[in-house]
Amino acid sequence: MPSRRVSYDLAEAPMAPGEVAIVGAGPGDPGLLTLRALSLLEQADCLVFDRLVSREVLALANPRARRFYVGKASRCHALTQDETNALLVRLAEEGRRVVRLKGGDPYIFGRGGEEAEVLIEHGIDFRVVPGITSAQGCAAYGGFPLTHRDHAQSVTFVTGHCKADGELALDWSALAVPHHTAVFYMGLANAGLISRQLQDHGLPASHPVALVERGTTPEQRRVITCLGELVETIAREELKPPTLIVVGEVVRLATTLAQPTPTEATFIEGETLELVPQRVAL
Amino acid sequence: MPSRRVSYDLAEAPMAPGEVAIVGAGPGDPGLLTLRALSLLEQADCLVFDRLVSREVLALANPRARRFYVGKASRCHALTQDETNALLVRLAEEGRRVVRLKGGDPYIFGRGGEEAEVLIEHGIDFRVVPGITSAQGCAAYGGFPLTHRDHAQSVTFVTGHCKADGELALDWSALAVPHHTAVFYMGLANAGLISRQLQDHGLPASHPVALVERGTTPEQRRVITCLGELVETIAREELKPPTLIVVGEVVRLATTLAQPTPTEATFIEGETLELVPQRVAL
Repeated sequence: MPSRRVSYDLAEAPMAPGEVAIVGAGPGDPGLLTLRALSLLEQADCLVFDRLVSREVLALANPRARRFYVGKASRCHALTQDETNALLVRLAEEGRRVVRLKGGDPYIFGRGGEEAEVLIEHGIDFRVVPGITSAQGCAAYGGFPLTHRDHAQSVTFVTGHCKADGELALDWSALAVPHHTAVFYMGLANAGLISRQLQDHGLPASHPVALVERGTTPEQRRVITCLGELVETIAREELKPPTLIVVGEVVRLATTLAQPTPTEATFIEGETLELVPQRVAL
Repeated sequence: MPSRRVSYDLAEAPMAPGEVAIVGAGPGDPGLLTLRALSLLEQADCLVFDRLVSREVLALANPRARRFYVGKASRCHALTQDETNALLVRLAEEGRRVVRLKGGDPYIFGRGGEEAEVLIEHGIDFRVVPGITSAQGCAAYGGFPLTHRDHAQSVTFVTGHCKADGELALDWSALAVPHHTAVFYMGLANAGLISRQLQDHGLPASHPVALVERGTTPEQRRVITCLGELVETIAREELKPPTLIVVGEVVRLATTLAQPTPTEATFIEGETLELVPQRVAL
């Protein structure tokens, strides 16, 4: 596949020593990174990144940056949130330019707000850069809009992940409304509860559901099912996290609007992957 | 302010003649454009763009691209949706590489699904590229997360804009839930209804609201108020579209997490704004 080199000049305050940038890395495809995210990755002395940040995105960072993996997997945390917070504070207090890279958007199930609060407590400067959240990536690549004049006039993003007390206490009646799209992040383990509660609150068993595993990456799998068959579909297809559960009439458009699954990561790996930083004084 | 030049190699199928790319342009700040969006802008023979696509983003496109403004303003449509659809079909059938550029994300209140359906009817190839939606940009720059472990475990994006029949029929009880963030796009004209209905369905008059006008641009204005004072605040501050209405406890964090308002567009204007396309065969 041919490649294309694009350059741009970005006018903004460079990162200061001791500053933290909380940056959304998007859902996986490095082509969905923002221009600002790329600029900050190139400036980083230290990268603190999650499990859902793709290898291709990490490859764009300053190669001299120290890399800290703080990813969480179910029941197997590399670092607790408190430890991650402490790491960010320590690196900033050492005067590093820290990029805290998060899969998706830091302010949508990314705990960006909590980490920013900790930085403020310690008097550390920070900036926040939004990223394409998983639902947006899975919708575009999965072939269904999140809203549509005829099928959904609103969309809700909700976490399907239990709190530490093991409870998934959602307002189910607010989610089980017609002409609405409900997207469950991290909901695979609670798919049985999601399926049952949405039906108990009025959605039919035939209500369409899309499951998108590793959305926007070359490993993307998209499975179309319905509420009544959600659990057995997940078991049969052996879907693993990260898988988004999208419930709504818009899913009916998925066959029509289907996009090809990415066949390779957007960025070329290895030597052709190149960053050419060049400061230009105005 | 210094500038920074960043280059990257993007490996993906170039646009074909007669293909349409439906591309999210983000909320205004060109630094929030994705790498793929930039690559497609550079390849465009024709740009078909909305009112909310910023001047700075347009400046990144191929300077030889023909530009078609199809923006909508309240009660003053440059083109009807049918006319826009017909334009896309005509340009594609003429063999142009068409970039259909939309403020925000094409699949969140962007009518991307409807336009894609029309392209399919006419046998026209298309691709969809997500963009940072306005809520994400306003949250990051406005200084409040959309979700937060202590304040909101879900977020809903809803259109506050009436249909052609003048009715704004929303499921208000689904929106007026605690520990939830509700973001109204295009809701300014219906602020009275929004305020009244949310209170009638159980939210207190003191429930916090953020109003963000022209979010992420140098003209950004952020006003913090509450449901009970929503209408008078909009009148007093003379807020104009595009203004996002964000309702939820997360707004209480806005003072703490505040980010500086952009003082200039991220991209340098004029001659320093440069695209250096350079195809590299693999």
